[in-house]
Amino acid sequence: MEKIIDKILFGGDYNPEQWPEDVWQEDMRMLKDAGVDIVTLNVFSWAMLQPNEFFYDFRKLDRIMQCVTEAGMKVCMATSTAAHPAWMARRHPDILRVDFDGHKRKFGSRHNSCPSSPTYRKYSKRLAGKLARRYRKYDNIVAWHVSNEYSTDCYCERCERNFRKWLKRRYGSLEALNAAWNTAFWGHKFYSWKEIVAPNNLSEHFGYTRTCFQGISLDYRRFQSDMLLRDYRTEYNAIKKYTPNIPVTTNFMGYHYQIDQKAWAPYLDFAAWDNYPACDSPEWSVAMWHDITRGLKGGRSFWLMEQTPSVSNWNRYCALKRPGEMRELSYQAVAHGADTVMFFQMRRSIGACEKYHGAIIDHVGTENTRVFKECAELGEELKNLKAVTLAARTNSRVAILFDWENWWAISYSAGPTTELNYPEEVKKFYRAFYELHIPVDMIGCEDDLSKYDLVIAPVLYMIKGNYDVKLNDFVKRGGHLVTTFFSGYVNENDLVTLGGYPGKLRDILGIWVEEIDALPAEKENNFTWEGLDYSAKIVCDLLHPETAEVLASYNNDFYAGMPALTVNEYGDGKAYYIATSSDPDFYYNFFERMAVELNIPSLGEAPKDVELTIRCKGSNNVIFALNHSFEHKCFKIWSDATDLLTGEEFRANEEIWIDNMGVRVLKTR
Amino acid sequence: MEKIIDKILFGGDYNPEQWPEDVWQEDMRMLKDAGVDIVTLNVFSWAMLQPNEFFYDFRKLDRIMQCVTEAGMKVCMATSTAAHPAWMARRHPDILRVDFDGHKRKFGSRHNSCPSSPTYRKYSKRLAGKLARRYRKYDNIVAWHVSNEYSTDCYCERCERNFRKWLKRRYGSLEALNAAWNTAFWGHKFYSWKEIVAPNNLSEHFGYTRTCFQGISLDYRRFQSDMLLRDYRTEYNAIKKYTPNIPVTTNFMGYHYQIDQKAWAPYLDFAAWDNYPACDSPEWSVAMWHDITRGLKGGRSFWLMEQTPSVSNWNRYCALKRPGEMRELSYQAVAHGADTVMFFQMRRSIGACEKYHGAIIDHVGTENTRVFKECAELGEELKNLKAVTLAARTNSRVAILFDWENWWAISYSAGPTTELNYPEEVKKFYRAFYELHIPVDMIGCEDDLSKYDLVIAPVLYMIKGNYDVKLNDFVKRGGHLVTTFFSGYVNENDLVTLGGYPGKLRDILGIWVEEIDALPAEKENNFTWEGLDYSAKIVCDLLHPETAEVLASYNNDFYAGMPALTVNEYGDGKAYYIATSSDPDFYYNFFERMAVELNIPSLGEAPKDVELTIRCKGSNNVIFALNHSFEHKCFKIWSDATDLLTGEEFRANEEIWIDNMGVRVLKTR
Amino acid sequence: MEKIIDKILFGGDYNPEQWPEDVWQEDMRMLKDAGVDIVTLNVFSWAMLQPNEFFYDFRKLDRIMQCVTEAGMKVCMATSTAAHPAWMARRHPDILRVDFDGHKRKFGSRHNSCPSSPTYRKYSKRLAGKLARRYRKYDNIVAWHVSNEYSTDCYCERCERNFRKWLKRRYGSLEALNAAWNTAFWGHKFYSWKEIVAPNNLSEHFGYTRTCFQGISLDYRRFQSDMLLRDYRTEYNAIKKYTPNIPVTTNFMGYHYQIDQKAWAPYLDFAAWDNYPACDSPEWSVAMWHDITRGLKGGRSFWLMEQTPSVSNWNRYCALKRPGEMRELSYQAVAHGADTVMFFQMRRSIGACEKYHGAIIDHVGTENTRVFKECAELGEELKNLKAVTLAARTNSRVAILFDWENWWAISYSAGPTTELNYPEEVKKFYRAFYELHIPVDMIGCEDDLSKYDLVIAPVLYMIKGNYDVKLNDFVKRGGHLVTTFFSGYVNENDLVTLGGYPGKLRDILGIWVEEIDALPAEKENNFTWEGLDYSAKIVCDLLHPETAEVLASYNNDFYAGMPALTVNEYGDGKAYYIATSSDPDFYYNFFERMAVELNIPSLGEAPKDVELTIRCKGSNNVIFALNHSFEHKCFKIWSDATDLLTGEEFRANEEIWIDNMGVRVLKTR
Repeated sequence: MEKIIDKILFGGDYNPEQWPEDVWQEDMRMLKDAGVDIVTLNVFSWAMLQPNEFFYDFRKLDRIMQCVTEAGMKVCMATSTAAHPAWMARRHPDILRVDFDGHKRKFGSRHNSCPSSPTYRKYSKRLAGKLARRYRKYDNIVAWHVSNEYSTDCYCERCERNFRKWLKRRYGSLEALNAAWNTAFWGHKFYSWKEIVAPNNLSEHFGYTRTCFQGISLDYRRFQSDMLLRDYRTEYNAIKKYTPNIPVTTNFMGYHYQIDQKAWAPYLDFAAWDNYPACDSPEWSVAMWHDITRGLKGGRSFWLMEQTPSVSNWNRYCALKRPGEMRELSYQAVAHGADTVMFFQMRRSIGACEKYHGAIIDHVGTENTRVFKECAELGEELKNLKAVTLAARTNSRVAILFDWENWWAISYSAGPTTELNYPEEVKKFYRAFYELHIPVDMIGCEDDLSKYDLVIAPVLYMIKGNYDVKLNDFVKRGGHLVTTFFSGYVNENDLVTLGGYPGKLRDILGIWVEEIDALPAEKENNFTWEGLDYSAKIVCDLLHPETAEVLASYNNDFYAGMPALTVNEYGDGKAYYIATSSDPDFYYNFFERMAVELNIPSLGEAPKDVELTIRCKGSNNVIFALNHSFEHKCFKIWSDATDLLTGEEFRANEEIWIDNMGVRVLKTR
Repeated sequence: MEKIIDKILFGGDYNPEQWPEDVWQEDMRMLKDAGVDIVTLNVFSWAMLQPNEFFYDFRKLDRIMQCVTEAGMKVCMATSTAAHPAWMARRHPDILRVDFDGHKRKFGSRHNSCPSSPTYRKYSKRLAGKLARRYRKYDNIVAWHVSNEYSTDCYCERCERNFRKWLKRRYGSLEALNAAWNTAFWGHKFYSWKEIVAPNNLSEHFGYTRTCFQGISLDYRRFQSDMLLRDYRTEYNAIKKYTPNIPVTTNFMGYHYQIDQKAWAPYLDFAAWDNYPACDSPEWSVAMWHDITRGLKGGRSFWLMEQTPSVSNWNRYCALKRPGEMRELSYQAVAHGADTVMFFQMRRSIGACEKYHGAIIDHVGTENTRVFKECAELGEELKNLKAVTLAARTNSRVAILFDWENWWAISYSAGPTTELNYPEEVKKFYRAFYELHIPVDMIGCEDDLSKYDLVIAPVLYMIKGNYDVKLNDFVKRGGHLVTTFFSGYVNENDLVTLGGYPGKLRDILGIWVEEIDALPAEKENNFTWEGLDYSAKIVCDLLHPETAEVLASYNNDFYAGMPALTVNEYGDGKAYYIATSSDPDFYYNFFERMAVELNIPSLGEAPKDVELTIRCKGSNNVIFALNHSFEHKCFKIWSDATDLLTGEEFRANEEIWIDNMGVRVLKTR
Repeated sequence: MEKIIDKILFGGDYNPEQWPEDVWQEDMRMLKDAGVDIVTLNVFSWAMLQPNEFFYDFRKLDRIMQCVTEAGMKVCMATSTAAHPAWMARRHPDILRVDFDGHKRKFGSRHNSCPSSPTYRKYSKRLAGKLARRYRKYDNIVAWHVSNEYSTDCYCERCERNFRKWLKRRYGSLEALNAAWNTAFWGHKFYSWKEIVAPNNLSEHFGYTRTCFQGISLDYRRFQSDMLLRDYRTEYNAIKKYTPNIPVTTNFMGYHYQIDQKAWAPYLDFAAWDNYPACDSPEWSVAMWHDITRGLKGGRSFWLMEQTPSVSNWNRYCALKRPGEMRELSYQAVAHGADTVMFFQMRRSIGACEKYHGAIIDHVGTENTRVFKECAELGEELKNLKAVTLAARTNSRVAILFDWENWWAISYSAGPTTELNYPEEVKKFYRAFYELHIPVDMIGCEDDLSKYDLVIAPVLYMIKGNYDVKLNDFVKRGGHLVTTFFSGYVNENDLVTLGGYPGKLRDILGIWVEEIDALPAEKENNFTWEGLDYSAKIVCDLLHPETAEVLASYNNDFYAGMPALTVNEYGDGKAYYIATSSDPDFYYNFFERMAVELNIPSLGEAPKDVELTIRCKGSNNVIFALNHSFEHKCFKIWSDATDLLTGEEFRANEEIWIDNMGVRVLKTR
């Protein structure tokens, strides 16, 4: 891949099979005018490619490939397996899912296949292989795109049987399983594997995340993620047989609850995701989603596989992207590690549920639209940027942990409060660094900590395996660790670690958490740190310092005076504990102070809504500045630089102006 | 019918089968005291009339007919088929529906029959025929009432099979169907008719109006409306065989989503509806429902089949109708075209879910109640009015289009906003004329436009067949057309018309709509017209005038200065386009101005909450004035008149006083 | 039982089967330190005790019994039947319930058994018998605890068949049933018992309390309560065979909708309940739940079977019980009639959905926690109190009726308003007496009225049997009766009593209610009584006094001047009617005045949030004072007294200080 890609790829999903062939040439002309150099083909064509069990018909796809190849386009080739054909559903009903309420589904929608369906396995594998074999001759295929936005659940009896097998592998014996799930509670002891049923609204659940037994529910989530991964890997292997050198991926969705993206990452050749912020998603959310995606493969660059040129039609209110907003969001992706800027979709379709979703070519069919023109201008700019950011790296000294299994466990927890939302808590920490203009890596439990000065593990409820040892080592060797309330409670089976919260983290944090008080949504306590008051919300730990020093205490309620913030010197490092959930000001001020202490520099001086990021390759450093506001702003960086978009040159510490919704790509000297 | 009806019929649903026979005579005495001259019988008696497959028992109904006939009552005879018997459900489960979630229902409730059940077809037809044959000898039967408030859906496999047949008739080939539904999207191509399943929560839907494929969902709505119509027609024909001269109808419910009332209208001998406004339904809603019903049969008068004398017990809060309110609502019906004033019900039942619904005779069983007395006073008044309004007409020069298929398509649309509600948008236009005291016809796409000066087609999203040609002709010949945002987008299959919105209306409107911006519920833009500012809500088109003239532009956001209101001179007429949704003031002022331009007179000068309507028969003109407020008001009309209720005489332009909740029926001279 | 219990029992649910045996001894040591002298064992052990159809394994329970017996603990022995084993669900699927939507459930959760399952009946009976036989030798078993928190519904075909049998017994004939349910409405007449299906979302219902036929729904509720009672009695009898002298009970939940607790009461040897107020449950709610429980057995003392030492983990926000709050709530139970103070649970479990529910021994496993210490202090106090309150009585002169069937009927009523909530209306009356410091009995329809001076029957919608005669007798003999709007409407089949509301109460109340106006939640009327204005909410009756005197009238709306409050002198007594729902001030002032008239003394003079209750045994009178506020307060009582907790002595009418969250137990002299 590296060989033939020498610039940020620009393009996206293209569905010529929805159009008469005479439109295709017009498409090519217009898309080239827009600077498009890559199209994603074949995302939803299974029914076209395979009309029945015995026959495949690649004639139209052949012509499409010929068309786009002749137009000089690169291709991201999808395998079409995210929606099975109607005939397959009718003749092989095993392919249909059973939903969370226990209903066998009928043909319709997408993500409609049972992940353990033999029919699905057989035909998806065969199709992926046939595609790879047939199109391997095209050297413009730069990537394979397996399925699309994996996200489904199934609760059928076959999945149930597979779940039992999966459990046997995990636990070995029923004794171990009964212990892991604490089935002595409510007398749920299992004497035979066959007694275990899928946990859904007909059995242990009373809502998607409300369960009577966290253990089984957590394992079913793992199992379903694994089943989908197995499906993905089946296609992956079928493709690699014929095109071993073309990278294979699938497109994620920021952080998606149902897929343990971090567990999948080793099986992707590169990471990719679809960026569809709602009209009220804050910029730091989007930034964090990018960084999570970059973190999947240890900091390697990723693909922005989809975004909308303007409207996401499934939103409650389909607001337009404002002038400049699409460009700015595109650069934000690149600024966080994307090597592509790709859209869903090239041409707006005429029917079905996404016909009002944005596209480069609108229903009017001309280049004379605001959206087309903004796309074309961006396409032109990206050509000029060349390869400078491709495969670049962001060398962060700060890492924030985001762990899917921890998320699942917290989501299933009965208590302390339904207000507790793991990603939202993580986001509070991410936002502080975003606004401090300090780059951050989003990591998983598998990632090495030794390269970081500061590791933040918000709400680390579940300590998997010996992750506490890893944290211990990190701190002992001089690292700074920050964690929070509701950390260290359970092991990977959601069984409480006895001996006092925060369990295995008690030593490193030097505290004992005796109780947690949950606050109704409309209430708050507060605490004073460094002379300022900050709110204490959602939960307040009642904790006792053991070896830790108290940095701040609650001001109200019967636990006034008890610690709200502590630090423990441990080995050569320090471990901080934030006992409650606070407001943005606190996190900003707290980490601003810590960055000074740890000598972690910001990338520059800028207003909070002017985002700064850095991408490094060899001796090249590029700082991106992104003005997310609707006003002109100014900022400084610490070295001389040239704006690669405008050619302007700036001196270190010079005030640099940036337009509303503006972007600067500053190559430093 | 005409022969024997010489006054506004007064009465309604009567259920003596729920009572011992000794109560019947008492009923007759009291109802006659109340001026009742018509009863609707037999609405829910199927189980009584047919105790099993083989036997019918009309003895009680015979006695009821004898009783009411001897009392001199006219009869509206229902067929009892809106709820099937329990024995039928048990012995012929094919009669039971499958609901939107795919659940086979059990016996219970009403509207419980599958519309394609052979059992239902067989026995409902037989029952209707037997009733007609048995009771044709009674010359006091003035109408047949088939079933009741048709409104059901079914998603069973038999309906599925019938749907496929319906689709074959509609499309002829799978190629045509695949094209019409754009099944290339998400690879939903069908290779066999049998692959098509009913669209519900188990297949294409994720909510009643949320669908992945608009095409199939829209067709299923049409199909279900057609299936119910077929059921209705089966009974209609069975009745006509024996009583060809007695008119047959069914009772609608204002505008009901599930039934294309306009498509049914040709098969009704006259239109009828049940008027149950909620306690917060504005008066213009009720007025519009009446006018929609009058419009079903091209302006012919209709029956008010049901209303409550006081309480609708299924409301969240069952507020009483205030003193005078029932009378006023009754006259409002007549004022809009009703030839009857009928109630559900004559006597309040003692058990089951409607026992607290209003009735002329309450549980107390005496005439000494407010409700009884108000009914009796109205009964007396109606006697005095005689036939003056019967079969009268309202000759409107303004028409507003209300189209069910357009409604369905808009309700299914994914984008631009969930705030968009077709009937509510239509109502905004209706309200303006209501408050301007200008009569309006509510029309369908089939109706002739040539008699109107002004045609308004709010949110005309779907252009069915060549309706654009009809509109073109209308405007070219000098008509004024007003339409709005989200018009002209699709054809009857919900496929987008390419070449720029508003599609086939682009020419007539002289504009090109490039984009739509959806505004969250709490936000608005605004525009200035004729020196006043008006809000712009829900959506704002970003449009370019082509041949149109710009009348008003947005004041805010990045599209400030773009048109919000345009007019295009086209042939001898004009076509207006309102690019956003505004507040009542705008529509009022806009159409007040247009009425002046078009020389369309109001019926008088009156406060907005004093409604004025007109009914004409031969040389007789009757103007109704209805004071919906709780204060005395005064108004003027343009000609001399006599109040038929009081005998008062008024001169043209004289100030006429009207009581709170008051009514005047003014015969003009 | 009486013999061996000489103090308030202190302890609760203990689940050693969830723990290694070496923990048990540590438990015993700590629990004894905490003053625990009773443990409830075996609540959820069925799967452990019975691994298959043929084999029982009591070895672990034997060891547990030995352990707790050696530790000197008393035992409340549960039968483990509130959750069946997984193997049973797999091999005997008849045990699994069908839910309200018609879904057959799979294994999971608790309350998972169909109440008419032969498998459940067979094995639950056998288990209860085996337990009784095996452990009868232990004289420290002081009570049997059947199942747990009965609360389930089932809608399977077997329940349906049993329902038909139940109906046959109730009605004798289909004619009687058709009349009772008024099946002539909507033609639901049944010709065969087999046509009757369970009323749920697939048949008559459109929501759990929304039904098309109140009659069938009401009978199904009765039937389900009866089926569960039959299950309970099956176990009861199996136990009594072996241990006829040990009392048997089950634990209720305040007032639980699904169980007619009053109908069950005769089959309990004593009443018991689980007290889990939400963090915003007002104190008078808790007090009323206690009094309802005390009322179940005619005023006999009951068991507080469960409460949490601190957190209820299933709440939305799991707030801690504040320091002193657990103690105060424990004394509140005793103050209202509890002979025990028991907790769920002794030791916090490590896994599944209640692992964050409070326990005496927390996950930290030490005695050094706030919660443990508060429990231990309470344990110590209770020892010192000895038997003084055991089996004491509260001799109230005021009774408030709370009737389950009336509740059900009101909940099912379509009209007059969804705002009407029976328990909340009852609570308004209860609260007045709570704040007036006047003890109240919560009674059922079966209870004798002759010992009361004042009987209040709020919203007595349903008059069962000849309950009107009972009320008549009570008033005629000099009693005071207070009732309200929506009273006297129907008989026990929810059939309206004809002849004018309030039906059979019309005579005694001397009024005729002509109409009911329902007010939206945001609206209110008001009335003036004794010079003060009070709000009139939810509904306003429009009524006519016949023999009654009008005490207050509405001030607004068209019924201004009509009575809002009446009194009727009847025989030697009086019957009051409150025609609307008002605010706390009204009820307080109204009953304060009535207490003076009836010479019903308060227990003392105290702020509203200092609760006073009395318990009497022989010549001993104990007054409890409970300060529910977070401030110090003072109060007076009318006689000299000694505080049994502190030894302090007070004179009659002396100001007595009480701590925030404080308790005084005052033995009067």
